[in-house]
Amino acid sequence: MRVAILAHEKFPDGAKTALGVLRYADYEVAAVLDRDRPADRVNDLVPDVRDAPIVSGVSDLDPDAADALLIGIAPVGGGFEDGWREDVRTALERGWDVVSGLHYFLEDDEEFAALAAEYGGELRDVRRPHDDVTVAEGVAGEVDAEVILTVGTDCNVGKMTATMELARAAEERGHDAAVIPTGQTGIMIEGWGNPVDRVVSDFTAGAVEEMIVAKGDEHDYLFVEGQGTIIHPAYSAVTCGILHGSRADKLVLCHEAGRETIAHGYDTAIPPIPTYVDLYEGLAEPVSPARVHAGALNTYGIDDDGAARDAVEEYADALGAPATDLVRFGAEGVLDALL
Amino acid sequence: MRVAILAHEKFPDGAKTALGVLRYADYEVAAVLDRDRPADRVNDLVPDVRDAPIVSGVSDLDPDAADALLIGIAPVGGGFEDGWREDVRTALERGWDVVSGLHYFLEDDEEFAALAAEYGGELRDVRRPHDDVTVAEGVAGEVDAEVILTVGTDCNVGKMTATMELARAAEERGHDAAVIPTGQTGIMIEGWGNPVDRVVSDFTAGAVEEMIVAKGDEHDYLFVEGQGTIIHPAYSAVTCGILHGSRADKLVLCHEAGRETIAHGYDTAIPPIPTYVDLYEGLAEPVSPARVHAGALNTYGIDDDGAARDAVEEYADALGAPATDLVRFGAEGVLDALL
Repeated sequence: MRVAILAHEKFPDGAKTALGVLRYADYEVAAVLDRDRPADRVNDLVPDVRDAPIVSGVSDLDPDAADALLIGIAPVGGGFEDGWREDVRTALERGWDVVSGLHYFLEDDEEFAALAAEYGGELRDVRRPHDDVTVAEGVAGEVDAEVILTVGTDCNVGKMTATMELARAAEERGHDAAVIPTGQTGIMIEGWGNPVDRVVSDFTAGAVEEMIVAKGDEHDYLFVEGQGTIIHPAYSAVTCGILHGSRADKLVLCHEAGRETIAHGYDTAIPPIPTYVDLYEGLAEPVSPARVHAGALNTYGIDDDGAARDAVEEYADALGAPATDLVRFGAEGVLDALL
Repeated sequence: MRVAILAHEKFPDGAKTALGVLRYADYEVAAVLDRDRPADRVNDLVPDVRDAPIVSGVSDLDPDAADALLIGIAPVGGGFEDGWREDVRTALERGWDVVSGLHYFLEDDEEFAALAAEYGGELRDVRRPHDDVTVAEGVAGEVDAEVILTVGTDCNVGKMTATMELARAAEERGHDAAVIPTGQTGIMIEGWGNPVDRVVSDFTAGAVEEMIVAKGDEHDYLFVEGQGTIIHPAYSAVTCGILHGSRADKLVLCHEAGRETIAHGYDTAIPPIPTYVDLYEGLAEPVSPARVHAGALNTYGIDDDGAARDAVEEYADALGAPATDLVRFGAEGVLDALL
């Protein structure tokens, strides 16, 4: 599949999905769409991912340049912004598929549904759960695989990235590892998965359990993509359901260096790192004990490598476990603690 | 509204919704339906609630005896059992409404929808959330009212009952108190509310916050109906979302005397009571600090009043806070700690 990735006014720092796809998916990327044109090419801004031109909209691309438009940004609440309509319309008129992880389902948009039907493209809402998701039975712990879950100090600190990096590193060491995708970006990258934040709240744990049971006897390690944080004023329910539904054996605490309050305008201060360790381990204990065995620190905001290493060291000290920046320094420093 | 309450093979102990309606709702109750006929009348089994005959099915009742059939039981998973179909059909053929809190929506059942349309009855799925439920903004703490949340050691230990009893007791003392209903039974009793376990998981906290913001400046006290338990293998997500979404000022820990494992076949042992206190308080702290100020012990399974008092005393000791069985002994022992 050759894709164009919509990331208007948000690339790269506000475009988590776009970056995830550029970094980890197997798609050929025709372009990133950002009408602010923050640069000519992706690698001008983010050097260590797949390169692609940055253009203003679908109409700047040749009609044959791609097969699909991916929505690569997700505003709080997951709504569709009207400024994206022209690009989706043009893509559909070219017969492209449109892949979206928004809470707003493109399939339910009358204009888009009509255009898809007329021109033969497909609307793929990856955040629409399948109909059979149900209540957890508490059986995820029975699978053969070791289950390793990324948990976070906040949203958008790098849990999906850590999951992907650790699974790849484990495979490079010769282990049979798989990713359990729980959010839109992970699902877009892996091509399957349950959008856990979009299922009925009673089925949150069940949506994770179902995936672990399906894959758990086929692999040595399952790396579960975590969501949110257990102290998130809005999303902690999802975090809690994934923790208990996955019955994780080991946890990896993900954090962004320098983050001081919960992102997107909440008034919740980030507590000390040991508070998170106590909360995650304490909450796991009665259901299925798990310890934080490693930390993943996102040092994207620190320019200097030495300062980044200092930040990692300080984080490892606070955590009482090995830590690293998986993207910047690789997984070597933490993999032994997890496998 | 005059209602018949369906509770086949489950009355009274497996019929939480039926009991809640009998105890707290303002409806006239024509009968409880249980084809096992565990007794002739409700009060033969449960003395301290509204009395009504127990009959085998809708067809044992006069067509004019009621205006609505309430589904008063909820199997794990919230499915509809085919053994109930005949009663729902008969009720609809009589032009009655049918009120259900199941995850399975009666409105989506073709046979029921056709019968409702033909005979003029209404299908009311109280577990279907309204369309505007969305992400929490973290603002429930800004309301004038003191927010008191019931939390639990398991499902089905008496959180809904404790909420209703405390709100009534506060009103009897002359305070302006309201209940924030979060589950099917509370919604059936109060006649409004968001079914928090049925909303999109990302909106769990938001569904609670919306109700608190709507009512919080109109009352002195809001008693929020809690759900599940923070260590539930399947439902902890809902519990966590309610804790953070409500930004409760005070918590009441509800427990059933003698309960040793999480109900309905899960393998999770009930940990010591102080573990729950630590988990609930620890999890609340970074978002909106709250302490467990009182305990509600359900001693329904203990025949002897003296033994029940001993159990309450032991529970209060473990909790480090005043406790009582609200139904058996009234709210006096704990109300001072909460108001």
